[in-house]
Amino acid sequence: MLNRERLNKVIGKLHRIGAEQMLITDPLAIYWLCGKWIWPGERFLGLLISETRAPVMFVNRLFEFSENIGVRVIWYSDSDDIIPMLVDRIDLRKLLAVDKTMAAGFLIPLMNANAAKGFVNGSIAVDGARAQKDSLEIELMRKSSKINDLAMAEFKGLVHEGVTEKEIADQTLKIYRRLGASGFSFDPIVSFGANAADPHHMPDDTVLKEGDCVLLDIGCVYENYCSDMTRTFYFRREPDERIRNIYHLVRKANEAAEDMLKAGIPLSSVDRQARSIIEEGGYGPYFNHRLGHFIGLQDHEAGDVSLSNQNLTEAGNIFSIEPGIYLKGDTGVRIEDLVLITEDGHEVLNQYPKEIEIIE
Amino acid sequence: MLNRERLNKVIGKLHRIGAEQMLITDPLAIYWLCGKWIWPGERFLGLLISETRAPVMFVNRLFEFSENIGVRVIWYSDSDDIIPMLVDRIDLRKLLAVDKTMAAGFLIPLMNANAAKGFVNGSIAVDGARAQKDSLEIELMRKSSKINDLAMAEFKGLVHEGVTEKEIADQTLKIYRRLGASGFSFDPIVSFGANAADPHHMPDDTVLKEGDCVLLDIGCVYENYCSDMTRTFYFRREPDERIRNIYHLVRKANEAAEDMLKAGIPLSSVDRQARSIIEEGGYGPYFNHRLGHFIGLQDHEAGDVSLSNQNLTEAGNIFSIEPGIYLKGDTGVRIEDLVLITEDGHEVLNQYPKEIEIIE
Repeated sequence: MLNRERLNKVIGKLHRIGAEQMLITDPLAIYWLCGKWIWPGERFLGLLISETRAPVMFVNRLFEFSENIGVRVIWYSDSDDIIPMLVDRIDLRKLLAVDKTMAAGFLIPLMNANAAKGFVNGSIAVDGARAQKDSLEIELMRKSSKINDLAMAEFKGLVHEGVTEKEIADQTLKIYRRLGASGFSFDPIVSFGANAADPHHMPDDTVLKEGDCVLLDIGCVYENYCSDMTRTFYFRREPDERIRNIYHLVRKANEAAEDMLKAGIPLSSVDRQARSIIEEGGYGPYFNHRLGHFIGLQDHEAGDVSLSNQNLTEAGNIFSIEPGIYLKGDTGVRIEDLVLITEDGHEVLNQYPKEIEIIE
Repeated sequence: MLNRERLNKVIGKLHRIGAEQMLITDPLAIYWLCGKWIWPGERFLGLLISETRAPVMFVNRLFEFSENIGVRVIWYSDSDDIIPMLVDRIDLRKLLAVDKTMAAGFLIPLMNANAAKGFVNGSIAVDGARAQKDSLEIELMRKSSKINDLAMAEFKGLVHEGVTEKEIADQTLKIYRRLGASGFSFDPIVSFGANAADPHHMPDDTVLKEGDCVLLDIGCVYENYCSDMTRTFYFRREPDERIRNIYHLVRKANEAAEDMLKAGIPLSSVDRQARSIIEEGGYGPYFNHRLGHFIGLQDHEAGDVSLSNQNLTEAGNIFSIEPGIYLKGDTGVRIEDLVLITEDGHEVLNQYPKEIEIIE
């Protein structure tokens, strides 16, 4: 059902960028606004919102539903041309904001049809509103991360002599389901030894051997809300001093960034805090990604914790804090939690410990 | 490594739509052209191709690689602004073609920067070239569908008294992997009884009962190429005459459409053929989607078999033939194969039988 509070928040933010109407095409934003989950693939799905007119939704008949969602639905079928149907409803005298992910294949014909006075990326309005999680969302995010904490403990139990990354990854979905999650928020990353030096390594047939690090970057979905956490373990052998030093740098960077969190500070300063610690330890060039990303209905939502993001934290923001050090052909460490900005500080959503842990 | 033959095919097709350069952002199209698989998420990934200049690829450092892929790579990091880097390389005196899926968040700033003389949806060039599978691709598509045939037989074996749709779906990945596939081409659809009336039903906790239909719409990925097939079974009880009639209509529609296939016929005529049979049987309104879609590196590629697609079939095309009848609250039947258009006719890539089959 249409959530008027969320809709009004988006329209208020649109107003600030000078737009009075927006064509929302991101299925998750549509779900967030209307509570209706439709995954249209290559077909068009859109919610046209406006300051002055009631919202209307354009849906392919293939995704037919009968319940009232509080929004007028205009149905079309595969043999219809959606562009003139959109042009009919868009106010051509006004700017039209569109989602940053809107596909060029629909946007260019709307432009060619002069459907609006101009076209502007309006994602900042939807994304900005979605970044301020309301209490219902916060509850679901807490629950999703709680399941993820429990899952981390169980996944650790899958690690044994001779196992491959893929064999571990293949068992995770079942465990998540048993713990009450509906699925993955992203395919689990299971990296042994030197594979951990690639932040986006895909589980392969690498066989675990004594002394390897075991990096688990995992996340699940609970009632459509995502979790995301990383821990780095060691198999059967205490890491040597060099590795311990790297681990502790990453942990210190993670904790120092988390400790400073509250509403009203630049997101760049949080990245700076963590990065400085790794730089001072001499590993600056080996932390080659931003510190974190926003998360919610998607594992990566708009908004990041990076040197280039000067935006201020706001109550209701939920993002990851995930410093890492990656040494090609050698090893990698990443320690990641989700954090929530609250009215008076912050809350770390993950409770799984961060001490160096040896898996026997 | 850059596949010059494929690149030249795309450039030739671009020429025909009046464009001399294209910014390709579809990761699969980039893989198809360069053999390099990068999944950039919300980050920018682009391959700029041109009639007169060597191709260049824009890649975030997060996806760093060292092998030579036959294309100059321009690396950027999360703190760089990619737009001026693109503007530098795009020939502003010429039209720029872009992918139909290019995100507005990158396209609008390029437009605002006057990066080109104009912007046009150039997907027809890439998609048109990708729709003509070469011999290497055809081999992989055959293999992927062969695995799918074997998987269908095994999945059927998972059906038993008291099982839920989800329980079946959850066991499929493991079987696919054992048969040599790398994963799903899409999440399997397992629909019991009335759930089969929703063509896109997601497996849920519905428990199987005697007399239910069991619709399995499944597909796997083999060396990045997708399969996709549907069969509808019945559990423990011979369906009554009305259901048998529906089943036979769908089967007849499927086979009549397949039988007529050869190069040079309008895709719409194939849909017409199947649809007429279902209409004459009195179920026209209950076949509420197009007959089929193209497939390859993606489970749904550009090109469809629908009344509105007047394009002619070409040798190398691979698409689905999937008529269905959907009776809300009651039952559903769909029978789907993949087919290849050859120089002198066609080849059905799926061999799994289509007779009514009762699972005991």
